[in-house]
Amino acid sequence: MTAPLAVSMGDPAGIGPEIIAKAWAARKEHDLPAFAAIGDARAVAQVWQGPVQQVRSLLEAANVFAAALPVLQIDGVHQIVPGLPDVEGARSALHSLNTAVGLVREGSARALVTGPVSKAQLYAAGFDHPGQTEFVAERCGVSGENAVMMLAGPTLRVVPITQHVPLAAVPGLLTVDLIVAKARVTARGLARNFGIDAPRLAFAGLNPHAGETGTIGREEIEIIEPAIAQLRQEGLDATGPFAADTLFHPRAREKYDVVLCPYHDQALVPLKTIHFDEGVNITLGLPIVRTSPDHGTAFGIAGQDLANPGAMIAAIAMAARAAEHRAAHVLSR
Amino acid sequence: MTAPLAVSMGDPAGIGPEIIAKAWAARKEHDLPAFAAIGDARAVAQVWQGPVQQVRSLLEAANVFAAALPVLQIDGVHQIVPGLPDVEGARSALHSLNTAVGLVREGSARALVTGPVSKAQLYAAGFDHPGQTEFVAERCGVSGENAVMMLAGPTLRVVPITQHVPLAAVPGLLTVDLIVAKARVTARGLARNFGIDAPRLAFAGLNPHAGETGTIGREEIEIIEPAIAQLRQEGLDATGPFAADTLFHPRAREKYDVVLCPYHDQALVPLKTIHFDEGVNITLGLPIVRTSPDHGTAFGIAGQDLANPGAMIAAIAMAARAAEHRAAHVLSR
Repeated sequence: MTAPLAVSMGDPAGIGPEIIAKAWAARKEHDLPAFAAIGDARAVAQVWQGPVQQVRSLLEAANVFAAALPVLQIDGVHQIVPGLPDVEGARSALHSLNTAVGLVREGSARALVTGPVSKAQLYAAGFDHPGQTEFVAERCGVSGENAVMMLAGPTLRVVPITQHVPLAAVPGLLTVDLIVAKARVTARGLARNFGIDAPRLAFAGLNPHAGETGTIGREEIEIIEPAIAQLRQEGLDATGPFAADTLFHPRAREKYDVVLCPYHDQALVPLKTIHFDEGVNITLGLPIVRTSPDHGTAFGIAGQDLANPGAMIAAIAMAARAAEHRAAHVLSR
Repeated sequence: MTAPLAVSMGDPAGIGPEIIAKAWAARKEHDLPAFAAIGDARAVAQVWQGPVQQVRSLLEAANVFAAALPVLQIDGVHQIVPGLPDVEGARSALHSLNTAVGLVREGSARALVTGPVSKAQLYAAGFDHPGQTEFVAERCGVSGENAVMMLAGPTLRVVPITQHVPLAAVPGLLTVDLIVAKARVTARGLARNFGIDAPRLAFAGLNPHAGETGTIGREEIEIIEPAIAQLRQEGLDATGPFAADTLFHPRAREKYDVVLCPYHDQALVPLKTIHFDEGVNITLGLPIVRTSPDHGTAFGIAGQDLANPGAMIAAIAMAARAAEHRAAHVLSR
């Protein structure tokens, strides 16, 4: 029996518990592999009527999975009120995340799926990483800069080269080294996690019309083109920079496996426009598989049975496929 | 009989002649009103086998339209080679544009639709406006800054507040006055041209997550929010700023009539991702109706019968509807 996946519950007052439970309920329809929720079982029980079973190990979780949602219990002293986050909930989320990472690192779990957390609450609880991605990277012995966030839906994958920084800071952060480093991790990640051995990397320009040969900005000529040239010298299938506005319609999407975009919104706007309810955040460059639904805690609708589990289902399915690709990738070397 | 529309042919070596002819061929299927092409009839004849009839007036064009594509002939001495633009072609395009504007200004034509031009060739021919929009605005006695470019498809309308400028310049260009001015013209334009009397204006933030309450940039707090507050005081339905990445999926699009975006790609990426073959550029703030297909000359495929007329058909249909809304709008005052 293959090991189950570990799904950290995220903030117990957010929609994490609900969408994990709904994903379990949809396990047959979506052919999901066995997984265990890591968190406080009460958070699930108070927002969902289905069967929940507390377990003490992932082996037990695998045996229970067909009949009930297995939950590996994390603490559970404070009161949880859906939609009302607090510092205790953030501590629980962090404990859950930490435990889940450990289970995957030690091999008890096959892959990590992380539920949504509140950064504001985590910071209040003393958390000092920019986000879950960097925390997971550090726990895996990888520097945060070498972990690459890719957002993926059924017909589009994007990598934002810079992330949560002010737009005004983006041009100054963009360097040949940064682009080359992100692209290398992306190419290796597509091979290991998706089985795409010679991935086609398309690059978006920074400026409108990709700078129009230098008349609307020179970053394409001075930074992006040299980075692409270097990557091609290394044997990667790197093309561009392309005008971002003509890069994401259906026919354009057939021509690449991923688009690397200079900044957050250029990558996230098309991804969420097309795949709002099924976007998955997958971290490349780690020794483990880690995915996450590409949305937040949605405190505003927590506990009201309104949360759409689509992205969580997609995150679990993608993590399982990535784990299989990794196993095959290792065997084929 | 209502006056026909004037469609300037754009660069005769581009796809303009072909898509205008194909739009005429599809006139019944799309219920298009009578229109006349303004340009060199030979440019059409050499890329299309259908009936073309040279006319001397738009009245004659209206009578001919059912049986042939009417072309109001503009010069025509030099040789036209599809896909090979030259300065003579740019002069022809400019002459065609100028004539078409005049026909609409004098009332012989009901609305203006402009075919795609090559800016590089126009500049070589001595053209000194940033683009066709500013030229048309000046010919109408409106300053270029007061003409607003809106891109519209069947399910989305967007206005880029800044346009063809380097991304690095955008934060410095964004002011309360600029946003307020663009929003006023947009609101009035939606009422006059689309019959939307109380348009819902949504604003995208500049930074990722719309700045996340100031932690990822402060332009939302210092510039965009005060602009929205001022617009609301003036009685406009202005909301935001919203995170751009969650603003364009299908459910989100139901909540507004237009999104005003701080910069080019934030507006154009979602529009062209969703409506690549049917995007229309409509200029608001002019005394006349002016639309254009939202694509370029596509010299690379000119003369090969490969051009998709979808955006030209949409531009003609939108211009006709806008002219009807304007007539109704005037009558109802």
